[in-house]
Amino acid sequence: MTTLTLYYTPGTCAQAVRIALEEAQAAHQLVRVDFAAAQQRTPEYLAVNPKGRVPALITPQGTLTETPALLAYVAQSFPAAQLAPTDAYGLARLQEFHSYLASTVHIAHAHRPRASRWADEPDAIAAMQRKVAQNMTECFHLIETHYLGDGPWVMGEQYTVADGYLFTIAGWLKSDGVDVQQFPKVHAHTQRMLQRSAVQRALA
Amino acid sequence: MTTLTLYYTPGTCAQAVRIALEEAQAAHQLVRVDFAAAQQRTPEYLAVNPKGRVPALITPQGTLTETPALLAYVAQSFPAAQLAPTDAYGLARLQEFHSYLASTVHIAHAHRPRASRWADEPDAIAAMQRKVAQNMTECFHLIETHYLGDGPWVMGEQYTVADGYLFTIAGWLKSDGVDVQQFPKVHAHTQRMLQRSAVQRALA
Ligand SMILES: N[C@@H](CCC(=O)N[C@@H](CS)C(=O)NCC(=O)O)C(=O)O
Ligand SMILES: N[C@@H](CCC(=O)N[C@@H](CS)C(=O)NCC(=O)O)C(=O)O
Repeated sequence: MTTLTLYYTPGTCAQAVRIALEEAQAAHQLVRVDFAAAQQRTPEYLAVNPKGRVPALITPQGTLTETPALLAYVAQSFPAAQLAPTDAYGLARLQEFHSYLASTVHIAHAHRPRASRWADEPDAIAAMQRKVAQNMTECFHLIETHYLGDGPWVMGEQYTVADGYLFTIAGWLKSDGVDVQQFPKVHAHTQRMLQRSAVQRALA
Repeated sequence: MTTLTLYYTPGTCAQAVRIALEEAQAAHQLVRVDFAAAQQRTPEYLAVNPKGRVPALITPQGTLTETPALLAYVAQSFPAAQLAPTDAYGLARLQEFHSYLASTVHIAHAHRPRASRWADEPDAIAAMQRKVAQNMTECFHLIETHYLGDGPWVMGEQYTVADGYLFTIAGWLKSDGVDVQQFPKVHAHTQRMLQRSAVQRALA
C-alpha cells in the first residue's frame, strides 16, 4: 500500500484534501504546519513547498501542491472510491468548479487574512478587508444559483472531491461576515457533509 | 466533426485556450468579446457565462468556463495531439501548474487592471497597482527556478497545453513593469513558442 503524506493546517483549504483522503480510504500520514508559529515560512517547510503554503502532498513519485491538483490526484489514484466523473466533459465540469473556488472564491476570502500580499499600506489593507463580505456574498450567490442544482452534491447525484472543497470554503463565510443561511442550498450541503463519517474523521 | 465555440478576447487568458485548440487542430469557431465596449457585462454574454469573464467554451454537451478546465478538456478530447500527460501523477503536475497560474500568477497581475474588484477607494486601488511588479517578479522567479527544468517545455520533453498558458501570462510581464529578460528560461520559452505554427495562427 502506497503511503501519502499531507502537510496541512486545520481550517485551511488543505482540509478539502484531508476529506478526500478519508473518503478514498487512502493510507496517509498527516504533518501539521503551525501558522501561529509561522512554520510555513521555515527553511524546512520551504524545502517541501517553496510557495510557503499548504496543502502539499508527498507521493511516491514526488511532491504535489495546489488544492485542485491534489483533489484530482486523489480521485484518480483511488478510482474505486468514485470521487470524480470519468468522462472528459464531467471531469472538465469538476475542474471548472475547482478552478472557480481556487482562483476566485478562495482569493475573495484571502483579502481579509492575507490582504498584505497585495498592498503594503495599512489603509489599503483595511479597504480590501472591508470589501470581503460583499465579494464572498457575490461568489456564493453564483454558487447557489449557477453551480448547485437539485443536488444532493455539487455534481448532482455523484458525491465527488468537489464537495469537500465547497464545504471547506463555505466554512469561512462566518468569519468573513457572511450569513450562510441566505444560501439555502449551500447551507443544506454543509449539513449533509457533516453527516458523512469521512468528514467527521477529517474534522476530528 | 464536433464544433466548439470559444468566446475570447485577444491578449487575455483566453488566448491559452485558442492556442490549445490550434495545437489540437480542433474544428472551432471564435466569438470575440469586446472589453472596450464592456460586452462581457451585457445580458447576452452573461447568459453564456454568468461570471462575465472570458474564456467560455461551448461544447456539444454544454458550456465550460475557467482556463484550467478548458485546457484539460481540449487535451482530453483530442488525445491524438498528446497535449497532456496521461498518468495520474503527470496529469496532477500539469494541473498543479495550471492552478498556480490561475490562482496566484493571474491574480497577481489582475491587481493592476482589475484592482477595483478588491477595494473601492482610489488610494487603495493605487496601492495595489504599485505592488504588481514586485508580486509578478516573485511569481516568475518561482516559475523560473521551480517549474522550468531543462525544457524545452514546461513538462520537460512533452509539449502540453501548459505551454500556451505560460506563454500567455508571460506576455503580460512587460505591461506589468517587469523585464522578462531577468528570467532566461521563461524568455527562451517565449521565443520557442513564437516559432510554432499553431501559436502563430492563434496570434493572427
Ligand atoms: N492556490 C493554492 C493556495 C494555497 C493557500 O493559499 N493556502 C493557504 C491556507 S488556505 C496558506 O497556506 N496560507 C499561508 C500563508 O499565506 O502564509 C491552493 O489552492 O492550494
Ligand atoms: N479564473 C478565470 C478568470 C477569467 C478572467 O478573469 N478573465 C479575464 C481576462 S484575462 C476577464 O474576462 N476579465 C473581464 C472583466 O473582469 O471584466 C480563468 O482562469 O479563466
